[in-house]
Amino acid sequence: MSSWEAYLNENQKRYIDELKAFLRFPSISSLPQHEGDVKLAADWVADRLKTADIENVQTLATGGHPVVYGNWLHAPGKPTIMIYGHLDVQPADPIDLWTNPPFEPIVKDNRIWARGASDNKGNMFAALLGVEALLKTEGRLPVNIKFFFEGQEEIGSPQMPEFLPTQKNLFACDLIVSADGAQWEEDQPSLVAGLRGLCAVQIDVQGARRDVHSGSYGGTFLNPIHELARIIDTMRSPDGKVLVEGFYDSVRSLSDSERAQMATIPYAEDEFKGEIGILETAGEPGFTTYERMWVRPTLDINGIWGGFQEEGLKTVIPSETHAKISCRLVPDQDPTTIADLLIAHIKKHSSPAVRVNAYPIESKAEPYLVPADHPGNEAAAAVLKKLYGKDPYLIRMGESIPVCSIMLKILNAYTINFAFGIKDENLHAPDEFFRLRSFHRSQKAYCMLLHELRERIATE
Amino acid sequence: MSSWEAYLNENQKRYIDELKAFLRFPSISSLPQHEGDVKLAADWVADRLKTADIENVQTLATGGHPVVYGNWLHAPGKPTIMIYGHLDVQPADPIDLWTNPPFEPIVKDNRIWARGASDNKGNMFAALLGVEALLKTEGRLPVNIKFFFEGQEEIGSPQMPEFLPTQKNLFACDLIVSADGAQWEEDQPSLVAGLRGLCAVQIDVQGARRDVHSGSYGGTFLNPIHELARIIDTMRSPDGKVLVEGFYDSVRSLSDSERAQMATIPYAEDEFKGEIGILETAGEPGFTTYERMWVRPTLDINGIWGGFQEEGLKTVIPSETHAKISCRLVPDQDPTTIADLLIAHIKKHSSPAVRVNAYPIESKAEPYLVPADHPGNEAAAAVLKKLYGKDPYLIRMGESIPVCSIMLKILNAYTINFAFGIKDENLHAPDEFFRLRSFHRSQKAYCMLLHELRERIATE
Repeated sequence: MSSWEAYLNENQKRYIDELKAFLRFPSISSLPQHEGDVKLAADWVADRLKTADIENVQTLATGGHPVVYGNWLHAPGKPTIMIYGHLDVQPADPIDLWTNPPFEPIVKDNRIWARGASDNKGNMFAALLGVEALLKTEGRLPVNIKFFFEGQEEIGSPQMPEFLPTQKNLFACDLIVSADGAQWEEDQPSLVAGLRGLCAVQIDVQGARRDVHSGSYGGTFLNPIHELARIIDTMRSPDGKVLVEGFYDSVRSLSDSERAQMATIPYAEDEFKGEIGILETAGEPGFTTYERMWVRPTLDINGIWGGFQEEGLKTVIPSETHAKISCRLVPDQDPTTIADLLIAHIKKHSSPAVRVNAYPIESKAEPYLVPADHPGNEAAAAVLKKLYGKDPYLIRMGESIPVCSIMLKILNAYTINFAFGIKDENLHAPDEFFRLRSFHRSQKAYCMLLHELRERIATE
Repeated sequence: MSSWEAYLNENQKRYIDELKAFLRFPSISSLPQHEGDVKLAADWVADRLKTADIENVQTLATGGHPVVYGNWLHAPGKPTIMIYGHLDVQPADPIDLWTNPPFEPIVKDNRIWARGASDNKGNMFAALLGVEALLKTEGRLPVNIKFFFEGQEEIGSPQMPEFLPTQKNLFACDLIVSADGAQWEEDQPSLVAGLRGLCAVQIDVQGARRDVHSGSYGGTFLNPIHELARIIDTMRSPDGKVLVEGFYDSVRSLSDSERAQMATIPYAEDEFKGEIGILETAGEPGFTTYERMWVRPTLDINGIWGGFQEEGLKTVIPSETHAKISCRLVPDQDPTTIADLLIAHIKKHSSPAVRVNAYPIESKAEPYLVPADHPGNEAAAAVLKKLYGKDPYLIRMGESIPVCSIMLKILNAYTINFAFGIKDENLHAPDEFFRLRSFHRSQKAYCMLLHELRERIATE
């Protein structure tokens, strides 16, 4: 056993206690009242980096939630790796569905339960601990290391496109390794070759200037909810094809080998349906569930509202109704262009009898691709094979991690996924947890990965 | 000047103070926390009937909000008239749009401002005052009188269909005169020949068992909001015709003379649009605005909701989404039958990929017609002509007053509309008011009407 491995084994109890302390901060980036908690969590991370002998630790102001940075740059001639993670978390609503309070972490059944346990505090802290173990036992690292832990991932990293270019030298690196992501199953590793992008549009429809009585006025003018439903229904065919003009124009077609590769990953229809409790799968004709989930773009209504929502009946024709529409995007769709196409479609299909307003919502992300044979992915594959005894699946992810494409554009460095959460760990949902086995394994994995990367990554 | 007229003139100041006291009860029937206030308002009305020398005053338990009853039956051989009104009011939301607090009535600009001022406390109290003036000055009434003031009109009189038959003798009468209704304009009276009925259905659509992330699962199953929008869009053509199978089957067609009569009532498109602030009128092809509003059935979504409704974006595919659908009905549509047709339509048009549940909402009312030449209407017309110097318009109302058809069925007596609110008085909206001129005029009107009815209504 290497000395760093022994060191990790000896310190698991302390690390779990530290993770609990980290999880106690309700660092919910989307809620203004928790802004101070994001800051406290950032301070905790900064202190913890110093304890791990990381240098130049700074909490950087971004105009929004901060970024915690630190580095260790004493491996001349070796590559510089930037480890990415985020210290902010999703809201905990609905609170009453949690078995244990979301910000009072407990260990039970060999899992640690709390908001952020898996996404992303447990994973980002494990990466830090791997680096610490190397430094404490070997006195040095096989590569140069930078840490980039942000506080705004869960709101789409809105400040990053403007903030990153202001600190290009500070963040310059050869590769980014993201502790935000996932593994396929507890005993099956995976590598991520791409992420979907995102754009979103809100639509507001107004009929009368005020809510009116459906008895007094019903039948004489266009109810805005009917109009909104009709507009929404023009945007997709019943079988799930997006009907917005130009929507698919820049979608890169799949090669036979890409499709064949995805087809090798086991898929069980009944298991998939059971996982989220649906009656049937459905979606764009001619594609498999994985293809629909990873490499095909979507259009989804994320929220709709208008009029009376309580028990019983109020016979009102509401003045206004609203919907939020978002699209997952694939290469080479551009978020701004697609949002414009949506808005043009909505305008084209709106009745002149009502006031329709459609406009972009701030959240957006470009689709992201990293070559499967990128040396970073090859290093990760080698480590995962050693740890799991199996080759990793090469997958795509349907989700968006905005910083991946932002960093590629601004820092000219790819990001590889090297995270150990499993999708059943209730990310973004009540009763989030992280497996302690994954917590420990990911610490080791980071130690191994840095050694692998030393040989495989070219430095500029 | 008759002595009752002088009596009314002398007492206006006192009556306004009494109306203020009545308006201070927040007797909101739809909100459980105001149940006690409805009861207090009922007690106030019962006391006030006694002060007016009305006999056998009782507050009757209905299983829900009470009915206040009283009578004066000393006109043998003369008809028995039951005066109807309601002492409950609509909620006051949104409170912050009121210039003056809704339950702190004030007099300003010769109007009294408070929730319920016009609908219906001011109008029902005026009817009571007319009867009082006759009793106090003449010592008797020209007809037998019963009062029926209910506390649940604003929630659709849910207990009335079961309660009325239990007290058939108590309520037996030759005609019901409703103080709930309206006049056309301040200087133009109207008579009501019919009301629309009502039925309502809720639709719930469930996709996944829980809310899921649109990145992780978007594209692989049917988003329930898309399905709800699609179902809603199958129910009406874009030009406003209801597409539910069988919906129009029992709609009585309009005679040429009915249409011609409605066409004599002045209509100004721009004024109508300005009244509620719409860009265009719209509705069932081949009908005028009055026809669409009064004598044609409708289908309206009164509320829709599902998923994320806050600022920004949450990329969720919600587990559930919902809509409330109601129809205004015309003779001879039956509310239960039409609700069943809606439910059958929804089932027929639902995808098997989601769970769709459609079921009736309790509120319902049958459409109601009273012959234009009913002696009650002829008596009312004669009084209105004397008071306004003009013949009343013969109109229909698009609204529903459930008790009209219930009483016709159970008591075998027609209801005529004899109310003095104007539609601009912010019924069901902030800043409700009642014109003091209408308050005074309606007291006189009731005195005159009872004299007219003595000669015109046959007694059983």
